[in-house]
Amino acid sequence: MITAVERVRAAYTRIAQVDRPEVWIGLRPQADAESDAAAVDAQVAAGDRLPLAGTVLAVKGNIDVAGLPTTAGCPAYAYEPQTDAPAVARLKDAGAVVLGTTNLDQFATGLVGTRSPYGAVRNALSPRHASGGSSSGSAVAVALGIADIALGTDTAGSGRIPAAFNGIVGLKPTYGLIPTEGVVPACASLDCVTVFARTLPEAERALSLMAAPSGRAPSAPAPRLPGPWRIAVPEPGQLGRLDTGWTEAFEAAAQRLTDAGVELVSVDLTPFTQAAAMLYEGAFVAERYTAVGAFIDAHKDSPGLDPTVAGIISRAKDIPAHRLYADQQRLASLRARALATLGDADALLLPTAPGHPTITEVAADPLGVNARLGRFTNSTNLFDQAAVAVPAGEVNGLPFGVMLIGPAFTDERLVRIAGLLTHPPQRLAVIGAHLSGQPLNGQLLAVGGRLVRTTTTAQAYRLYALNTVPPKPGLVRAGENAGGGETGGGGSAIEAEVWQLPAEGLGMFLAALPRPMALGSVELADGSFVTGFLCEPQAVEGAREITSYGSWRAYLAALPRP
Amino acid sequence: MITAVERVRAAYTRIAQVDRPEVWIGLRPQADAESDAAAVDAQVAAGDRLPLAGTVLAVKGNIDVAGLPTTAGCPAYAYEPQTDAPAVARLKDAGAVVLGTTNLDQFATGLVGTRSPYGAVRNALSPRHASGGSSSGSAVAVALGIADIALGTDTAGSGRIPAAFNGIVGLKPTYGLIPTEGVVPACASLDCVTVFARTLPEAERALSLMAAPSGRAPSAPAPRLPGPWRIAVPEPGQLGRLDTGWTEAFEAAAQRLTDAGVELVSVDLTPFTQAAAMLYEGAFVAERYTAVGAFIDAHKDSPGLDPTVAGIISRAKDIPAHRLYADQQRLASLRARALATLGDADALLLPTAPGHPTITEVAADPLGVNARLGRFTNSTNLFDQAAVAVPAGEVNGLPFGVMLIGPAFTDERLVRIAGLLTHPPQRLAVIGAHLSGQPLNGQLLAVGGRLVRTTTTAQAYRLYALNTVPPKPGLVRAGENAGGGETGGGGSAIEAEVWQLPAEGLGMFLAALPRPMALGSVELADGSFVTGFLCEPQAVEGAREITSYGSWRAYLAALPRP
Repeated sequence: MITAVERVRAAYTRIAQVDRPEVWIGLRPQADAESDAAAVDAQVAAGDRLPLAGTVLAVKGNIDVAGLPTTAGCPAYAYEPQTDAPAVARLKDAGAVVLGTTNLDQFATGLVGTRSPYGAVRNALSPRHASGGSSSGSAVAVALGIADIALGTDTAGSGRIPAAFNGIVGLKPTYGLIPTEGVVPACASLDCVTVFARTLPEAERALSLMAAPSGRAPSAPAPRLPGPWRIAVPEPGQLGRLDTGWTEAFEAAAQRLTDAGVELVSVDLTPFTQAAAMLYEGAFVAERYTAVGAFIDAHKDSPGLDPTVAGIISRAKDIPAHRLYADQQRLASLRARALATLGDADALLLPTAPGHPTITEVAADPLGVNARLGRFTNSTNLFDQAAVAVPAGEVNGLPFGVMLIGPAFTDERLVRIAGLLTHPPQRLAVIGAHLSGQPLNGQLLAVGGRLVRTTTTAQAYRLYALNTVPPKPGLVRAGENAGGGETGGGGSAIEAEVWQLPAEGLGMFLAALPRPMALGSVELADGSFVTGFLCEPQAVEGAREITSYGSWRAYLAALPRP
Repeated sequence: MITAVERVRAAYTRIAQVDRPEVWIGLRPQADAESDAAAVDAQVAAGDRLPLAGTVLAVKGNIDVAGLPTTAGCPAYAYEPQTDAPAVARLKDAGAVVLGTTNLDQFATGLVGTRSPYGAVRNALSPRHASGGSSSGSAVAVALGIADIALGTDTAGSGRIPAAFNGIVGLKPTYGLIPTEGVVPACASLDCVTVFARTLPEAERALSLMAAPSGRAPSAPAPRLPGPWRIAVPEPGQLGRLDTGWTEAFEAAAQRLTDAGVELVSVDLTPFTQAAAMLYEGAFVAERYTAVGAFIDAHKDSPGLDPTVAGIISRAKDIPAHRLYADQQRLASLRARALATLGDADALLLPTAPGHPTITEVAADPLGVNARLGRFTNSTNLFDQAAVAVPAGEVNGLPFGVMLIGPAFTDERLVRIAGLLTHPPQRLAVIGAHLSGQPLNGQLLAVGGRLVRTTTTAQAYRLYALNTVPPKPGLVRAGENAGGGETGGGGSAIEAEVWQLPAEGLGMFLAALPRPMALGSVELADGSFVTGFLCEPQAVEGAREITSYGSWRAYLAALPRP
């Protein structure tokens, strides 16, 4: 593996390359990060086992990193922490090197990523679209390949909406699992430190390193009833208005779970959406005034205050306590209804957001657009649930994401279920010794392969008996110039079997493939393309063409018996 | 996916092909299995969701399958069960079709697979070697690709030793998790129904379908302390004598866990091996007499009794109860020591067996060889632990296997940890647009890629600028005839980066690969081979050779700026 110093250098090269200065509030000088990295490399050389050696980390600007100001997105609020927040310290102890602190919706108040005097954070994949907030800079740093992992926070969706909008993974752990010392509170009774990464294993590893007894004492989830995973999905029509194509994308994600053996259970989403609405319309916002109201009152004219954020928090000053009591009662009742609705389901599957606004759309209606974004995320924290947000395909060229939401302390289980979406089974077309009954068929079975169907390639291939020991078939696309255009002539349909393999099984299979065989994209009789067997070009030179047999099996059968 | 009927037909074709009649005691007529399969296909056509539709199942001969005699490996003992054991019934309800009942060490007494009047079961990969027992036929049916899943039982290792010897997965669930109604008891207080499969996900799915409240009430494991997985391994030298090469294979497995971020903890194995020894030397064997002693006494002269098994059980008649009390006290004390030794470790890693005997070696010393085999498995059941046995490479052409042993009800967690061994990260050499800083590098990051090192290919390749849009590099092995021999001339070293990807990430990456690119085996400067980029043969025709640039980056840099 490359050294920590090399990894840090690559990160700064990437920072220069992408030209997204608004991602950072406190980017460290490269020399400082390299110095930390050199210390990691020295520890590794001395025999220390650092699970995150060679990993670079971005930290949301409302979490303490010693040596950098904690701003919470507000220059006037900045202070210089003497120590790292425990969450940061644990990742550093494990070998991660901090690149800097990232931009956010000020005081973590927003789901849009535009409410910051340090600039609106542009989406990693489409700069005119919102990055999502409030953990905007952290998510974009990961999505752009600058950081390997990044810390966010989540009070109402701030660790998940940006994951969905930038096509990455966001873990909203059980409340209290990661200590929130050294984190500027938004709503202290709901705030969680969250993790962004490009893949589930990377995110989960970081979570396991940060979770600790000084947070909420870990306790086991209730035992689950046996059987396949049971996943709740909303009754038809209950998702409300979604962006064009998002309903279909959500249904496709649910179908992928079904294909993976999951049992879907239809549930009433009403208590979830009613609780979500309370976050903006009710008394809970008063907790934000408790956190930073005095500061905002004292700095009303500071140019660094975001007007939308300042307005939300200021208005919360006058919410009477009796309304809070009433809202807490109502929430308890909605929570009881929601949990009864879920019954023995392992998780609730929802779109992470109802749609993806442009930065212009956010500016035109800052409160309305923001409130809509939280429709599916807001209730999670209010109901003391954990959630995992994962990419689930693309719609109109932008990422689409879903969440799996489950009971407190089912974090591990939610990651496992989400894995069914992030690496679904893959297909492989075989034409030779891996066909059913042929000598190497067991290699497919050994990695979990299942025969899907018997078919042929498109009428566009030539088959060769390669001069290998033992003989192997070489499949070559015929009648096509190098630019991909058909030039006609010479191609036939060759017998093929399509197998389904777990994604890790396909990876293991590829890794064990001997020369001169290769895997690429093969066209089937129905015009679809699937991963299939090819071979290195030079292997075909001097090999006997056996296209006319139409199949490897037929060619073998015609060979003289030894 | 192919139909259940097609899957059953393929299974019977395979049965004929492998010519291993000793695997089966009660192989069903193909027509009966096809009839069950047709019913499954009809249910699926009617819209039923059957998670095991298209799956074929083998059942150890000591578990009831209605319509087949339950023999426990003894013809004289046979009875005709009226109903399926619940474990079998649940898999059938989920769509699995039973092929038949399998051979076993008689009365599940043995770890060798040879103690049966139905014949010694030969190893799936090396017929002169033991298959392992007592669930010999079930393991071999899975390893040979006949059955997708198979049921075994495990009292002292019978569900794990055969998995290790035949290179497959064996799950020994928590005691009571799967009901043992309809199973001929060996030691009723220790017996578990077990699952064999070729992969962990297949085995775990079957387990989840069989586990049920009518067994031991599921309860959650104790909460684990946060942090990376902590795996206990024996102090150096405590494994005792292993077969040649097995110590190194075990150390390699432990190293693979370390590489995956696991923390290894050295522990004292003494209480485990002392408890294991009690199983053969102590009073616990009397429970086998309780189960089938009266039958054996009444059939002393039956030719169908295995003399070794009959001797073991008969001799247990005279063990006095006061010795059992004393042994139970000693076991409780050893268990307390063992659990204290493990501390907060998530699991104990052990070789599944100390070695792999031939059938001739078993015949020469039936009791001695058998006792040695149980050195690592025997204590699991006595200590009320769960275990997962997985393949961990090969030694001298035969499978080597390890176990992860953990507390009751950590079955899921043990499967997850074992997955680190069955699908470790893989490497991929990239030469073009996936290099660091190039446009497609993000595709590697998105599936969890990490740069390992920058190097070159061996001096044996030619590089082409393919006529694709956008242009892609085509790497072709040079100076070699189709038979693989070097003919000299023309090859160069081409710049390459080696990336590490999770196995599922490599699979996802391959599945997304566009034509005319392909992945195969590429030789690096140090002579090693790694999965890397190649291309379809016809893509090179008419393409410009750019070998002299030595790298795709250098070629791009020399292009005139548009």
